[in-house]
Amino acid sequence: MTDLSHGAAWIGGRILPISEASIGVTDWGLTHSDITYDVAPVWGGAFFRLHDYLDRFFASIQAVRMNILMDRFEVHAALEEMVAASGLQDAYVAMVAARGPNTVPGSRDPRDCSNHFYAWCVPYVHIVKPEQAEKGTSVWIAKSVRRIPRDSVDPRAKNYHWGDFTSGLFEAKEQGFETTMLLDHQGNVTEGPGFNVFALFGEVLVTPEHGVLQGITRQTVMEIARARGLRVEERALPLEELQQADEVFLSSSGGGVIPVARIDDQSFSNRAPGPVALALRSTYFEWLEEPRLRSPIRYG
Amino acid sequence: MTDLSHGAAWIGGRILPISEASIGVTDWGLTHSDITYDVAPVWGGAFFRLHDYLDRFFASIQAVRMNILMDRFEVHAALEEMVAASGLQDAYVAMVAARGPNTVPGSRDPRDCSNHFYAWCVPYVHIVKPEQAEKGTSVWIAKSVRRIPRDSVDPRAKNYHWGDFTSGLFEAKEQGFETTMLLDHQGNVTEGPGFNVFALFGEVLVTPEHGVLQGITRQTVMEIARARGLRVEERALPLEELQQADEVFLSSSGGGVIPVARIDDQSFSNRAPGPVALALRSTYFEWLEEPRLRSPIRYG
Ligand SMILES: Cc1ncc(COP(=O)(O)O)c(C=O)c1O
Ligand SMILES: Cc1ncc(COP(=O)(O)O)c(C=O)c1O
Repeated sequence: MTDLSHGAAWIGGRILPISEASIGVTDWGLTHSDITYDVAPVWGGAFFRLHDYLDRFFASIQAVRMNILMDRFEVHAALEEMVAASGLQDAYVAMVAARGPNTVPGSRDPRDCSNHFYAWCVPYVHIVKPEQAEKGTSVWIAKSVRRIPRDSVDPRAKNYHWGDFTSGLFEAKEQGFETTMLLDHQGNVTEGPGFNVFALFGEVLVTPEHGVLQGITRQTVMEIARARGLRVEERALPLEELQQADEVFLSSSGGGVIPVARIDDQSFSNRAPGPVALALRSTYFEWLEEPRLRSPIRYG
Repeated sequence: MTDLSHGAAWIGGRILPISEASIGVTDWGLTHSDITYDVAPVWGGAFFRLHDYLDRFFASIQAVRMNILMDRFEVHAALEEMVAASGLQDAYVAMVAARGPNTVPGSRDPRDCSNHFYAWCVPYVHIVKPEQAEKGTSVWIAKSVRRIPRDSVDPRAKNYHWGDFTSGLFEAKEQGFETTMLLDHQGNVTEGPGFNVFALFGEVLVTPEHGVLQGITRQTVMEIARARGLRVEERALPLEELQQADEVFLSSSGGGVIPVARIDDQSFSNRAPGPVALALRSTYFEWLEEPRLRSPIRYG
């Protein structure tokens, strides 16, 4: 039997080791970054909020006008079969819809491509290492780039257009920061490579509304926060306002709630995780165990 | 012997049929569209202006901070070996530098990826079919999207961030147009999927300067135009000005000079190719045969 513990893929109905999973070099998914995807976490042997991730995935597929010829039950079955085969109990599970190769010789028409679905999973990914997250991470506001605007590429259809993030990451790493956050062309905070952003002002929690992915973790955080009696505002968040926040944290399927202790040369909550961020973080990990939010995987 | 007449690829020193050439699903080249590439034409058994394409490719690689561990002579040799093996006399030759897989478990740092080079070729691609190009093609100005700005992703490092173009292409095809042209956020003309744009006003030829790829064909067209006594201006070109042009045409390694007869509901030069565009088009095809601009391929 093949070892799938480093990761597995589902391509065209077959389960492969992750190292053998690939896509053709002329697929528009690659050559035009014409892909929409989603990433759902598996935690302790069950998908978390899978139906919300599937809703978002199918909404994205419709937004980019693809047809993968599979419905959500078939996608769910493929994902479950793949994760079960891998044996992974905590996993990062990617589902991908690609435009595909153009099937009409010489055509440059996206409608002539044969769209396809594939999936892969690897051991759970933390976008910031847990040790770092618990101490409060550091974020660099990218100076040389602005987030791709939503009237160029819609960030709500989760996509692989990461050139802006990658430029920001290079800056961040060179400055000794863990990750980066991008501003839009109006100077508002947007998001970062793999996360949404929250800022706390007293009892009010603010998160950018436009020009960002509608993160599922962002949604979970807003639900937890409201249940704790915080007021939540989805609206524009200018950088100058962020800098006045009592606490700042990130949200991601890759690690839940990640407190921020430093942005550029400025410290937050005495260069430590803020108490609200820490509380939301631990409640998020509790919610990961909530049976009502879980779709258990039947391992072989 | 394998049939490589549909196309061939060079990957890690091996020549493959194009249908077998692929890239891993976790390569940052795919998952972050973290790729820079170039496309050089082969015409009648020789590369055209190969040194200019190689200059641009290596400048792009430097701009995105990759190291492919091959110099331009090795890349040239790989391309020539691949095209020779394919037997193709007229070809579209893609050279690609990809960020590669992250080699440090759990790392989200682009500096931990192992960059790599690969190449592929297929029979020569016309971005607009020659029959269409000779009658003058039709271009739709995208309404729902603006070109990704250069302070988000630099268009001078040729890249696969084509989400904006693809949205524009869907609009164009639905409106019955051949291709699409994108405006920037200030309302200036930029470029389209695979081409630069020129507008002629009397004896003055204008082409956008910023927010576009510095096309090699654009360069060739400017050289030809100057040799014919036209004045060439590289500068911002507002849409309103384009609409007043005597002639409009596109430039691309995939077809040279492509006259435009219609933009949205407006006709140019009596809905036919303009005389200057046609003259530049035929001179471009003559230049393709100029020995001083050619790097002949030694077929096996
Ligand atoms: C750009 C971007 N924003 C935000 C997020 C967070 O979304 P979610 O909470 O659904 O993981 C991600 C997740 O990967 C992302 O890639
Ligand atoms: C976005 C874009 N602009 C312009 C061009 C034209 O450049 P060149 O003349 O070098 O082919 C291309 C070529 O593919 C392109 O992709």
